[in-house]
Amino acid sequence: MKSLPSLIALAIFISPNLQADPLPSWNKSASKNSIIDFVNKTTTEGSKDYVVPAKRIAVFDNDGTLWGEQPMYFQAIFIFDRIKALAPQHPEWKNKEPFASVLKGDTKTALSGGHKAILEMAMATHAGVTTEEFNQSVRDWLATARHPTTNRPYHEMIYQPMLEVLTYLRANGFKTFIVSGGGIDFIRVFAEETYGIPPEQVMGSSIKAVYEIRNGKPTLTKLPELNFIDDKAGKPVGIHQHIGRRPIAAFGNSDGDFEMLEWTTAGSGLRLGVYVHHDDAKREWQYDSPSHIGQLKRGLVEAPQRGWTIISMQKDWKTIFPDQSEKKTN
Amino acid sequence: MKSLPSLIALAIFISPNLQADPLPSWNKSASKNSIIDFVNKTTTEGSKDYVVPAKRIAVFDNDGTLWGEQPMYFQAIFIFDRIKALAPQHPEWKNKEPFASVLKGDTKTALSGGHKAILEMAMATHAGVTTEEFNQSVRDWLATARHPTTNRPYHEMIYQPMLEVLTYLRANGFKTFIVSGGGIDFIRVFAEETYGIPPEQVMGSSIKAVYEIRNGKPTLTKLPELNFIDDKAGKPVGIHQHIGRRPIAAFGNSDGDFEMLEWTTAGSGLRLGVYVHHDDAKREWQYDSPSHIGQLKRGLVEAPQRGWTIISMQKDWKTIFPDQSEKKTN
Ligand SMILES: [Ca+2]
Ligand SMILES: [Ca+2]
Repeated sequence: MKSLPSLIALAIFISPNLQADPLPSWNKSASKNSIIDFVNKTTTEGSKDYVVPAKRIAVFDNDGTLWGEQPMYFQAIFIFDRIKALAPQHPEWKNKEPFASVLKGDTKTALSGGHKAILEMAMATHAGVTTEEFNQSVRDWLATARHPTTNRPYHEMIYQPMLEVLTYLRANGFKTFIVSGGGIDFIRVFAEETYGIPPEQVMGSSIKAVYEIRNGKPTLTKLPELNFIDDKAGKPVGIHQHIGRRPIAAFGNSDGDFEMLEWTTAGSGLRLGVYVHHDDAKREWQYDSPSHIGQLKRGLVEAPQRGWTIISMQKDWKTIFPDQSEKKTN
Repeated sequence: MKSLPSLIALAIFISPNLQADPLPSWNKSASKNSIIDFVNKTTTEGSKDYVVPAKRIAVFDNDGTLWGEQPMYFQAIFIFDRIKALAPQHPEWKNKEPFASVLKGDTKTALSGGHKAILEMAMATHAGVTTEEFNQSVRDWLATARHPTTNRPYHEMIYQPMLEVLTYLRANGFKTFIVSGGGIDFIRVFAEETYGIPPEQVMGSSIKAVYEIRNGKPTLTKLPELNFIDDKAGKPVGIHQHIGRRPIAAFGNSDGDFEMLEWTTAGSGLRLGVYVHHDDAKREWQYDSPSHIGQLKRGLVEAPQRGWTIISMQKDWKTIFPDQSEKKTN
C-alpha cells in the first residue's frame, strides 16, 4: 500500500490533459465544449463563475431527453397495456374515448390530447390502486414489455451520452433532478437504477392520492383526480414546489421545456440551457417543429439568441443507446 | 504527516466506548438509547436490520419538534406583522375576520381556525408577491423580530438536542427532511442555515404559484389559492408526492404528526417513531392534550402500544435552546 504523501504526489502528477474524457460517447463538438466549460467554470474555486455545491442544481426532462419517446411516449404504451388488460371489466370503454381508440389500436387518436389525455387514461386505470401495487405493475411491465421497433426493454432505450452527463455533473458536486411532463410515480420506479436519480429527485405530472387505513393497514391509494401537470409553464412551478431553488443548468428536448430553460437561464451568474435535437433518422428518430410528440419549434428558433446549446444527436453523439452487452452486466 | 497504514491503525484503536457522545445535550435516558440503538442497527452492515444508505430517510415535523410554537406558531406572528404593515392598504380588513381580530390584537380568535386559517391569512397577504420578494420579507423579519417572552430571534428558538439528532443521523448516511404543517416557502428561507436541511428537503403547506413574464422578466408569483395542506393524513400524502419513498424514522410532537409516524412505522424492517413531549413548564412550555397549538392526545395514549418513543423535554434534555454565546459564533 502506498503512503499518503506518495498518493498525494501521484494525484498532483495526473494533469487535466491526462485525465479520462468525462464524456467519451461525445464527438468533439461545440455542445460538448459548452457543457465541460460550464462545469469547469462553476466548480473552480476562485473563478468568477464559481457556484457553491448546494446551489449546483441541474434539471433534466425525461421523454426525448434521457430516453426515447418514439413512436409514442413509453408511458402511453404502459397505459395502453393496462387498458387492454382491464377492458373485460370495463365494457363501457368500447364506446368511450380515448379508450375506444386504444382498444381499436388507433393510438394516434388516443394520444391527440397530449400529456393531459395520457393522465386522464392513467387516472381511469390507476384509480383505487395503492402506490405499492402501482409500483409493482410498472416493474412487471418494464421486465416484460419490449419496444416495437428495437425490441429493447424500454429502460434500455436511454441515451448513453446523457448518462455520461448525469454522472459527470454528479462527480462535480451537482444534484441531478428529473422534471418530466410524464408521470412522477411511473418514472420513480426505474430512475434510481437507470439514471442514478433517487425518487426524491424526480418531479413529474401526478394524480392525487389519499391516506387511509384499509383492513387495519395504512395505505396510500391513487384517486381519479388530477393533481399537477408538470409541463410548459408548469415546469418552473413544479421546480419551485419541489426544489425551492432555481437550477443553474437545464436540459430538455421540446417546447414543453422552454419555460424550464428560460427560468433556469434567467438567473444571475453563469447558466446552462441545453436542447437535445432529434436529427438522427438513421440511429434514432428525426423530428422537431411539425411533430406532435416532442415538438421543438420556438426553442429551435430562439435557442441561439438566448445562448442555449443545441445538441445534434447525429453529429455530436458517437453512440445513442448503451451497448446491449454492457446492459446485460447491470 | 502519518502514513496511511498508521492512520488506519489509529482508527481501529479508537473503540466505540471512547468515541464522543453523538447526543451530548441528552441525559442518559430510554429515548436517547432508542435513537442510538436504531442508528446502530440500521447502519451496521451484516445486522439483520441493516438499511442501505439510499433508504435512510428521516422526516421531522418543524413547529414544536425542531423549534418552538408558543405562545403561538411563529409563522402566524410573521403573518400578523404583515397584516399590520399592509392594513392601511386594506381598510376592509377592519370588519373582516380573521383580519379584524389580528388588528385588534385578539390573536386567539384569529388563530382558532388552525393551520388552515393561517394559510388563508397567508394567501391574503402574499398574493401577487413574487417568490423572491416573499423570501426577502421572511429574511427581513427573521433579522429583526424577537420572541415576545425570550427576546430571542425566532430561528434561535430551536432545540439543541434535536439539532444533534439531525447531525447524528446525517453523519450516519441519513437524509433528513422537514414535513411541516407550516408554510413550505417560509421554512425554506432559514432551514438550510438553521438545520442544515436544503430547500429541496423541506415539505410544508403551500399556496399556488404561477409562472409568467413580467416586464420581460421571468417570475413566479404567489396566488390566493390553496395548493396543499401538509397536516394529519396530508403528511403521508406529501411525503409520497415529494420523496416517493417511505421514511424509516419520523419525529413529531402532536396529533398532526400521528399519520406520519403511523405510515413510517408500518413499513417492514426496523422503524423509529418519536414524539417530543412538551412537559417542561420551567425551561420551555408545558402542554399536550388540551392545547389548541400542538395538541398531543391520541399520540400520547397510543405511542407505548405502537412502540413509539416519547421524549420528555424536562427529563431527557440537558438544555433546550442553543447557548446564546454559541449562536453568536455562527
Ligand atoms: Ca421531452
Ligand atoms: Ca408540530
